[in-house]
Amino acid sequence: MRIECIAIGTELLTTRRLDTNSVWLGERLAHLGLGFHRKTAVGDSREDLADLFREALKRSELILTTGGLGPTFDDFTKETFAEILGADLVEDATSRADMMAFYAARKRVPPQVNFKQALIPVGAEPLRNPVGTAPGVWWKDPPGHPGVRIVMMPGVPREMKRMWEEQVEPRLETLAGRAVHTLRMVVCGVPESSLDERTREARDRHGQLEWTILANLTQVELLARGMDRAALEAARVDFEQVLGADLASIGEGNLEDAVLDQLEARGQTLTVAESMTGGLLASRLTAIPGASRTFLGGVTVYSPAAKTALLGLPVAFLAEHGTVSEATTIALAEAARRVLGATWGLAVTGNAGPGAEGEAPVGTVFLAVAGPAGTVSIDRLLPGDRPDVQLRGAAAALDFLRRQIDRS
Amino acid sequence: MRIECIAIGTELLTTRRLDTNSVWLGERLAHLGLGFHRKTAVGDSREDLADLFREALKRSELILTTGGLGPTFDDFTKETFAEILGADLVEDATSRADMMAFYAARKRVPPQVNFKQALIPVGAEPLRNPVGTAPGVWWKDPPGHPGVRIVMMPGVPREMKRMWEEQVEPRLETLAGRAVHTLRMVVCGVPESSLDERTREARDRHGQLEWTILANLTQVELLARGMDRAALEAARVDFEQVLGADLASIGEGNLEDAVLDQLEARGQTLTVAESMTGGLLASRLTAIPGASRTFLGGVTVYSPAAKTALLGLPVAFLAEHGTVSEATTIALAEAARRVLGATWGLAVTGNAGPGAEGEAPVGTVFLAVAGPAGTVSIDRLLPGDRPDVQLRGAAAALDFLRRQIDRS
Repeated sequence: MRIECIAIGTELLTTRRLDTNSVWLGERLAHLGLGFHRKTAVGDSREDLADLFREALKRSELILTTGGLGPTFDDFTKETFAEILGADLVEDATSRADMMAFYAARKRVPPQVNFKQALIPVGAEPLRNPVGTAPGVWWKDPPGHPGVRIVMMPGVPREMKRMWEEQVEPRLETLAGRAVHTLRMVVCGVPESSLDERTREARDRHGQLEWTILANLTQVELLARGMDRAALEAARVDFEQVLGADLASIGEGNLEDAVLDQLEARGQTLTVAESMTGGLLASRLTAIPGASRTFLGGVTVYSPAAKTALLGLPVAFLAEHGTVSEATTIALAEAARRVLGATWGLAVTGNAGPGAEGEAPVGTVFLAVAGPAGTVSIDRLLPGDRPDVQLRGAAAALDFLRRQIDRS
Repeated sequence: MRIECIAIGTELLTTRRLDTNSVWLGERLAHLGLGFHRKTAVGDSREDLADLFREALKRSELILTTGGLGPTFDDFTKETFAEILGADLVEDATSRADMMAFYAARKRVPPQVNFKQALIPVGAEPLRNPVGTAPGVWWKDPPGHPGVRIVMMPGVPREMKRMWEEQVEPRLETLAGRAVHTLRMVVCGVPESSLDERTREARDRHGQLEWTILANLTQVELLARGMDRAALEAARVDFEQVLGADLASIGEGNLEDAVLDQLEARGQTLTVAESMTGGLLASRLTAIPGASRTFLGGVTVYSPAAKTALLGLPVAFLAEHGTVSEATTIALAEAARRVLGATWGLAVTGNAGPGAEGEAPVGTVFLAVAGPAGTVSIDRLLPGDRPDVQLRGAAAALDFLRRQIDRS
């Protein structure tokens, strides 16, 4: 089924307002095994709407719209669909009664302009709005377009979501009838292009699945979609072999979930000592509910004084080795582990820029993991500007820790 | 000029990935007095891309695309445009040299698949990518479409933004012909609707400017746009009076910039003790270049043990007052200030959820600021789920500190 989403509202084109409705709808559709082939945002221009609706009627079987159902002068989603499909708008008694009740409950009289919200195209059904005044519209087989369904919903996320869950999704479930499943694998520490080459043969072996590679600053995701659960499971088993220790996580989680899961499974605890990442590492871990079961806390030792005051590193030691060095990073990891009494101590120092710091160029990062079997460390030169280096540094630290726990 | 934006990538349709690129581009266009009439997101399907590009060439004079320029099997923005416009792709020597240099700087050899990134349609110009390997394309008057400009940019925000600022915007400025100036004011701790009412008269007084109020989870921005610099300056002076201590920042900065600027101006230093915000507060501060001049560091005391080990809070004290309480928060702020020897100590405890913690419902937050003249504290009940409460808690803490420094 070809499905598209149209978000209506000039604010989506001119301000920082993100169209989160379509993201939410995309997720709900995925659960039904359905997905968009296109999403569009368009302003409150009647001409632009008419053009877009005409195109959509040609190319899609299910058209979802959000917005433009309100009472004001610039709301005309229903009006435009009715016009291009040659249908009249008539007042729907239930919608009018709902609106009167909505206002009565608030001891107010509906403004005159609001009555246009109760108008529905002839041949369409209203979708009730239990948390607002704008009803939606379900229009199956509109004139001249048999097999097409148009669903118009309000732009207010709370109203749209409730309408979708209670009235739209149940109607679609009978249509969907088949479910598409997804396999998501997160890989850290491997560039996108290398991963592409390294997995080409394996993807070909599972060619009946639809493959996507998504890279961001800190990880690469391999996504497979297909209707056959057994084929996805076979791909999972195969890719565990192909990717080995580089496979950080399977399923919905990311690197930080993987690390917390590892710790919880082993009944172990973690502490961090951060300089360059400045709290980002702790913040990524504590964003996960339940992090407190394994993450004891940490220190952001952003000045030499903090390294001495909080973790007892001697002033002379710091003077000898410098604040950005392998020796200092190892000392921080070991001190953090000892002071907090954790199973693992993870430390990061480096220079995120903008300027060089001592002899360390921008992007320099030292990582150390102190654990039950001793301490290991590595260094890296990370690309990018300050926020990139901090993000990549935090991810590199978590990935280094993950690999050490894996081996232990 | 009719302008549209096309974001390319299946991840924009199927995952939680929001298309933030087009929002950023919309803002940059607004500064030139231009705007989109439509934005579309489409998957990595060659057929869907071809359909969409053909439509766009009919209805728009400037077509901006992001994404689909990478090296992998599902990147074919350039290929599709070249195909529907009947142009060949040829290797661009500069783009190839840039890519070789990019890899050489990292002591790597480009994977074979990467070379397709140096291909450019005949008649188009490459846009160099100083922070990545995928060049963009500037294509003026493509075959059969005189007066049309196609701009293809990478989907990675950092690469796209730099390319836009350095190479695309300068080309468009000559087209737009007028400069629009902006006044941006950041207000914290005041709800959007109150700010709307409180500034209505002042906005009317400066009615020749175009006003926008943008709220997000942690702050409200008042934006004024106009072509007359003097009118913007007059508005700034007026709003400083109207908003008083609620005005956190003017210009590009946010709350954390304002706090670091205050500290630097006074030659003072800061340390933080975080429980509920779990490193987010330190992370927001250290995201700002130069933060190390005033921010000494901090502790993420995510467990009772950490509060004792790092800041010396007695076990009996914690048992008596609980970890989420005014007394504990005050003790943390004072201990952090003392241990690090900072001018100011800022502490946050609370419950971000998902479950209730002791007697503290989700959203409970206690804030304390210890400074030269003593310690002050407040508590709040913040709305939202875990990430919201953490973000709002960090912002409330910074705003509370900002007001204390302001008064000192």
